[in-house]
Amino acid sequence: MRSIRTSTDLLALIMDNGVGQEMYQFAADLFPICRSITGDGVRETLRRMQQEVPLKIIEVPSGTDVFDWQVPLEWNIDGAYIEDAGGRRIVDFADNNLHVVSYSVPVDATLSLQDFDEKLYVDPRHDDWIPYRTSYYSQDWGFCLAQSVRESMRPGDFRVKIESRLEKGNLTYGELLIPGQSSSEILIYSHTCHPSLANDNLSGLAVTIWLAKVLLGRSNRYSFRFVWGPGTIGSLTWLANNESMLGKVKHALVCCLLGRPGALHYKQTPSGVSDIDELVACVLKDRGEDAVLLDFEPYGYDERQFCSPGISLPAGRISRLPNDQYPEYHSSADNMDLIRSSTLGESLDCLQAICDELDASKYYLNKSPKGEPQLGKRGLYDAVGGMSPKDRQLIMLWLLNQSDGVHSIQRIARRAEFDLDQLRSVAKELEGAGLLMDADTGQRGSTK
Amino acid sequence: MRSIRTSTDLLALIMDNGVGQEMYQFAADLFPICRSITGDGVRETLRRMQQEVPLKIIEVPSGTDVFDWQVPLEWNIDGAYIEDAGGRRIVDFADNNLHVVSYSVPVDATLSLQDFDEKLYVDPRHDDWIPYRTSYYSQDWGFCLAQSVRESMRPGDFRVKIESRLEKGNLTYGELLIPGQSSSEILIYSHTCHPSLANDNLSGLAVTIWLAKVLLGRSNRYSFRFVWGPGTIGSLTWLANNESMLGKVKHALVCCLLGRPGALHYKQTPSGVSDIDELVACVLKDRGEDAVLLDFEPYGYDERQFCSPGISLPAGRISRLPNDQYPEYHSSADNMDLIRSSTLGESLDCLQAICDELDASKYYLNKSPKGEPQLGKRGLYDAVGGMSPKDRQLIMLWLLNQSDGVHSIQRIARRAEFDLDQLRSVAKELEGAGLLMDADTGQRGSTK
Amino acid sequence: MRSIRTSTDLLALIMDNGVGQEMYQFAADLFPICRSITGDGVRETLRRMQQEVPLKIIEVPSGTDVFDWQVPLEWNIDGAYIEDAGGRRIVDFADNNLHVVSYSVPVDATLSLQDFDEKLYVDPRHDDWIPYRTSYYSQDWGFCLAQSVRESMRPGDFRVKIESRLEKGNLTYGELLIPGQSSSEILIYSHTCHPSLANDNLSGLAVTIWLAKVLLGRSNRYSFRFVWGPGTIGSLTWLANNESMLGKVKHALVCCLLGRPGALHYKQTPSGVSDIDELVACVLKDRGEDAVLLDFEPYGYDERQFCSPGISLPAGRISRLPNDQYPEYHSSADNMDLIRSSTLGESLDCLQAICDELDASKYYLNKSPKGEPQLGKRGLYDAVGGMSPKDRQLIMLWLLNQSDGVHSIQRIARRAEFDLDQLRSVAKELEGAGLLMDADTGQRGSTK
Repeated sequence: MRSIRTSTDLLALIMDNGVGQEMYQFAADLFPICRSITGDGVRETLRRMQQEVPLKIIEVPSGTDVFDWQVPLEWNIDGAYIEDAGGRRIVDFADNNLHVVSYSVPVDATLSLQDFDEKLYVDPRHDDWIPYRTSYYSQDWGFCLAQSVRESMRPGDFRVKIESRLEKGNLTYGELLIPGQSSSEILIYSHTCHPSLANDNLSGLAVTIWLAKVLLGRSNRYSFRFVWGPGTIGSLTWLANNESMLGKVKHALVCCLLGRPGALHYKQTPSGVSDIDELVACVLKDRGEDAVLLDFEPYGYDERQFCSPGISLPAGRISRLPNDQYPEYHSSADNMDLIRSSTLGESLDCLQAICDELDASKYYLNKSPKGEPQLGKRGLYDAVGGMSPKDRQLIMLWLLNQSDGVHSIQRIARRAEFDLDQLRSVAKELEGAGLLMDADTGQRGSTK
Repeated sequence: MRSIRTSTDLLALIMDNGVGQEMYQFAADLFPICRSITGDGVRETLRRMQQEVPLKIIEVPSGTDVFDWQVPLEWNIDGAYIEDAGGRRIVDFADNNLHVVSYSVPVDATLSLQDFDEKLYVDPRHDDWIPYRTSYYSQDWGFCLAQSVRESMRPGDFRVKIESRLEKGNLTYGELLIPGQSSSEILIYSHTCHPSLANDNLSGLAVTIWLAKVLLGRSNRYSFRFVWGPGTIGSLTWLANNESMLGKVKHALVCCLLGRPGALHYKQTPSGVSDIDELVACVLKDRGEDAVLLDFEPYGYDERQFCSPGISLPAGRISRLPNDQYPEYHSSADNMDLIRSSTLGESLDCLQAICDELDASKYYLNKSPKGEPQLGKRGLYDAVGGMSPKDRQLIMLWLLNQSDGVHSIQRIARRAEFDLDQLRSVAKELEGAGLLMDADTGQRGSTK
Repeated sequence: MRSIRTSTDLLALIMDNGVGQEMYQFAADLFPICRSITGDGVRETLRRMQQEVPLKIIEVPSGTDVFDWQVPLEWNIDGAYIEDAGGRRIVDFADNNLHVVSYSVPVDATLSLQDFDEKLYVDPRHDDWIPYRTSYYSQDWGFCLAQSVRESMRPGDFRVKIESRLEKGNLTYGELLIPGQSSSEILIYSHTCHPSLANDNLSGLAVTIWLAKVLLGRSNRYSFRFVWGPGTIGSLTWLANNESMLGKVKHALVCCLLGRPGALHYKQTPSGVSDIDELVACVLKDRGEDAVLLDFEPYGYDERQFCSPGISLPAGRISRLPNDQYPEYHSSADNMDLIRSSTLGESLDCLQAICDELDASKYYLNKSPKGEPQLGKRGLYDAVGGMSPKDRQLIMLWLLNQSDGVHSIQRIARRAEFDLDQLRSVAKELEGAGLLMDADTGQRGSTK
């Protein structure tokens, strides 16, 4: 395992995009692996991730009840192909793991084209793209291939072989808790189940791994919990395993689709007014990101599970162009040429800013709330009176007036029409002077 | 009593406007009767209504305390006229029952014109219209006549005779409960007290009677209670008689002025955000009605009583042009020429749609609220994954995500930006699959 | 003490601006006095105010703990000057008490100009204005002088003398309670601490003293409490002395800067939706005042203390141009030439209207809330029915419908779109008829 870099080193690397290149290389290493919602591909992926950060690998046996679901049989595959009568391999899993419908049952048969035509999936809009299809919860099989290849197939017999295994095994996910001063947690989820697709979601894995490195390299106020698991069944399994601790989750964020250039998109929680909604919006605005705020809808990634009515975590989602807005989605065109090291670097930078903001989301209590405290005797106010207060003094007055444990520092900044950073810095002074306290931890914070 | 038609038959009749003609004929039958807030005219009216639907007739004795009021003496009238010195009848109750101020005390006198001039009411804006006036709670008498007739009267003596009786008797109202699956009720009120006036309110009586026929002919989720009574004192009397059951009333609707062509007007409840306000607005919008939503004001019909602070039922009112917006209001021009069978038919059709909507106002509970339920194993989701969901699947996700017993299906439809009918149909599927339940009854609904 | 005038007399005086001239004269009398946050100048001021109204003078000893503060030593001054080598007095406290930084410690030294240059305060933007500076909470001294005078001073030695005393003594404030029918209070605060400055705040003292005279001369529903004390430490001291009774304060209003011509400015409470915010806004609008509504900010006058999170009184502030909007602020140009008797008169007139409104802020309860009460039997409704109600009747219906003890009469007026005065007058009728009662006192009000 590499030594973990300090935050300062990483920042420098991001600046010259060394980290972007590292993330890109990491994704490239993982790209060939055939992942699915279970199986050795996911295990291998998590082990590679373990070389970067000390995540735990959790195995949950097939058949385990998970709310309304069950952990499915484990799926593994050794090879698959379609051979024509002349022995020529028209389609070969060895060329691209998208060729096989994920979770295909084993097949070994010679069939006339017409007999297995319905098992062939193409993308009619793009001649050369192999689509990505799955059949996790219905025993079936199929091949995905380019429209051009499909059109080249002439009537006749074909040898069709899928060397897969569906057996009792496990669902595998990774988890990393980075303890902070507070036992309250910020949850970050990224899905691991896609095979050779780069943006969806090797980009998400890369950026969240490097984000975890940053957070490991520094002291945080909140605890950060990363979970890397398959889509849907993975978040459900984690939720079922951790239901009793969900009350500790202050904010949750699903991260994906972060390597393909395109505007950042933040998908809001169902209420649209959760603190994470406001905080992320502030970050994006402060950074001048040309970002899009999306209303919640119940389709999407694992935020669907976190925002279900019986779970109801305040979960947002950060991505670049969402799945329905980039044409390469779920096709072989979502490959290592689609994503950029610079985009990964920018995504990490933004995610770091979001985590900074979430970690810094503070609710202060005025410890001297009856009237204004005497700032002058603490050297916080001009000794000679009679003139209008300077900005710094006015910010003090705002912070003292509004710090009732309910208004976040960000809301106060907006109302006072001062820069958030100025408020933060002045709040630290007031905290140092014993006039404000952190309403969450009840102790003086010390992040950053 | 005629046999009660099924809903399907009625619908067909509405289509060819047979029901419109039936309602018109019903109003025509009742038109000549001299109704007031008490008396034989009301009784005769209710008996004629009993030929259509099995309503109960309730008699409440004069002098009964009704909140701040008392049931007044019963008023009946046999005839009235003004005769000139030459024995010519200038004004005769036999010609039009509007000629006598309702609740006039008996009079038999010869008076000079100047002596009883203040007892003569005209409409100065319309030469030939007889205005409608009442004096229910103040012992008085008077005649209403056309301006042109008044002008033809020359100074001199006139024989003035009103053969009326004010005696201990009863206030009479009609009531019909149509039990539904739930004992919760939807209350429909229409006033019965106007004499030979067609739009105000024989149209209301006709449409609500035929509405009751429709509801009698089918199974409903909610119970529907119709009350037909005099304005103000009638609703007060009913409220006083039924105060202990008002908690069962989910929605209340006052119906009147439904026969004269003109845009539908829905008057909202005092809060303006009661469920009935939203539901009726949805119906009118869905139907493409060029309808007007009116803010609540405390003047109007019996919604005044239902919306008083000590009663506070969520009562809206549906009419066409309200009283202050059609010139024939409270005059002899509000006669059988003013109302149309086609308008009555359209009003019934709309009221039926409103009752459908009120009856279908549903609050679902997701029975599998932790994460999404596994739709695939129930055949509700495509077996092959990797593609964006179809509308039907997206609607399922919306319904499951939002069904917390608080958001009505109508609110979910609006947020999801899908058609309400689609949501209803998908909700039924989810109910059938055991994933949603009716939050109100706790059992699967079976309306329509 | 002069005899206290009746409200009617005062009104007449305001009309011909006799009162404006009285207030101006009062301010002129007080102008020469050297006030500060403690000391004989304040005492003398309060004693002069006692000649107008029977206020109590409260003395609080130096060293008394007041929340986060302490009552400071008492400061008094007999004289001060700067003399040049030739014995010429360049600056003399006897000419203008602004010349000495308030709370200057005693000094008696011969210093070279360069040695005490930093103790000299000028207004660089106005050659001839003496600025106003203080050093209450930091032991220091200094002189304020016109820029032109400063420029005339040549290098050399100067005799510098300040004959001041900083000794254990008292902080002095004035208080006047005018009991009303209700023990609930309206609090009015005006600061007393400024030396020879006319608008800030002799104008505030004058207007509030004459306002107190008006309120003393009539019967009020609420009790009115006036407090005249130094800025910041005065309101803090009063709050600390009266903390247990703050629950009785319904509304609080800080009054200052009311003599210099300029638009009225009402600064709202932190919530912006307190009743006082609405009531004052109504008054200003009704009067056609070209007034400005300011959002709350935590800088300003004593509303800062009243609105601190541990006190949280609904305190607004009324002034004309606020401190940062008139150039003469805190300088010798804020003198008796700056303020006008007519402006003082107009301010009093407006403040009186505000107090009328606050005193008349009423929450009624409908005593006959089930349905409408029978207005006709009380002679409140036309005997002959059938016509639309007159305005007066419609207002009755609005009042009866909305009087649930929560909606103020002002809110009802706005919703009903009727004039507030009309509503008030009709409400009195309904109160007289026993149909409405005052939700606050539970008894019929009798103001005005």
